[in-house]
Amino acid sequence: MSERMECHALRFFESMVTIKLICVGKIKEAFYRDAADEYRKRLSRYAKVTITELQDEKTPDGASVAEEQAILAKEGERILKAVSPSDYVIELAVKGKTFTSEGLAVHLDALMLQGKSSIAFVIGGSLGTSPEVSARADEHLSFSALTFPHQLMRVILLEQIYRSFRILKNEPYHK
Amino acid sequence: MSERMECHALRFFESMVTIKLICVGKIKEAFYRDAADEYRKRLSRYAKVTITELQDEKTPDGASVAEEQAILAKEGERILKAVSPSDYVIELAVKGKTFTSEGLAVHLDALMLQGKSSIAFVIGGSLGTSPEVSARADEHLSFSALTFPHQLMRVILLEQIYRSFRILKNEPYHK
Repeated sequence: MSERMECHALRFFESMVTIKLICVGKIKEAFYRDAADEYRKRLSRYAKVTITELQDEKTPDGASVAEEQAILAKEGERILKAVSPSDYVIELAVKGKTFTSEGLAVHLDALMLQGKSSIAFVIGGSLGTSPEVSARADEHLSFSALTFPHQLMRVILLEQIYRSFRILKNEPYHK
Repeated sequence: MSERMECHALRFFESMVTIKLICVGKIKEAFYRDAADEYRKRLSRYAKVTITELQDEKTPDGASVAEEQAILAKEGERILKAVSPSDYVIELAVKGKTFTSEGLAVHLDALMLQGKSSIAFVIGGSLGTSPEVSARADEHLSFSALTFPHQLMRVILLEQIYRSFRILKNEPYHK
């Protein structure tokens, strides 16, 4: 990592960024809850972290397209209520942009330097997100072409944001 | 999923495939151990599952290229000893092939139909794997451009293999 990057890292310490996770659905498995809690705790050394868990809608087996759209619309309204006008919104989406871990760190650094002081990551429900949520998002980020359970996705996201800060601070991080 | 696929799924039940995970390094965090145990248990309904944890070498801070190569060589020897000649070896590598979850399921199905009765997934240590391991691998699979901790990678891999079998069996799987 260059000196330039270390200097950036110091800058966000002076005015701690807020990292919001806005998630549809609760974490049920104890091991995922413990994992998410652990990374949230570690991340809180670098950022103010808030996690908003929104109620998910049950998707009946064999739901019609109209039923699915109604579910997405309801969940989408809840997501949009949880977002503040000043939030920079990053939606996790299979078809979003991909990054390496170093690339993601540099990208988050650039956002913070641009003055984005509240970055909200949105993890949709099992059907994804509504067009309204996608339209509100400032960008779309893909972690994998694979579909992960949303509980696991939350752990992966927290770990990668934590890793980004470690990279930006030039702190060692054992894989 | 088509009838064709269901038929395939029934076939591997008759002769259960062996899924081996060959991993460098132990799982230290209780939540990752619990998560891995849970998916291993679920997966064991569809396949014989073995998990081999190999000793990792400590990588000193600021290790030279030669030191890193020596570490990779040692870990590589352990990996190759854990692989059987008849194993179909899939190495997880950032630069490998990518799949969707459905694509991975179809790919594993095809391998099983080709008579691969023992599929060994290799997760290397923090430096990756040696050229000898890469050469032994029948294919290289990438789950993400991001770097995950190896403990988390093991959970993600087990979950995706389990998900593959659920997809091939046309069983519902909640995200």
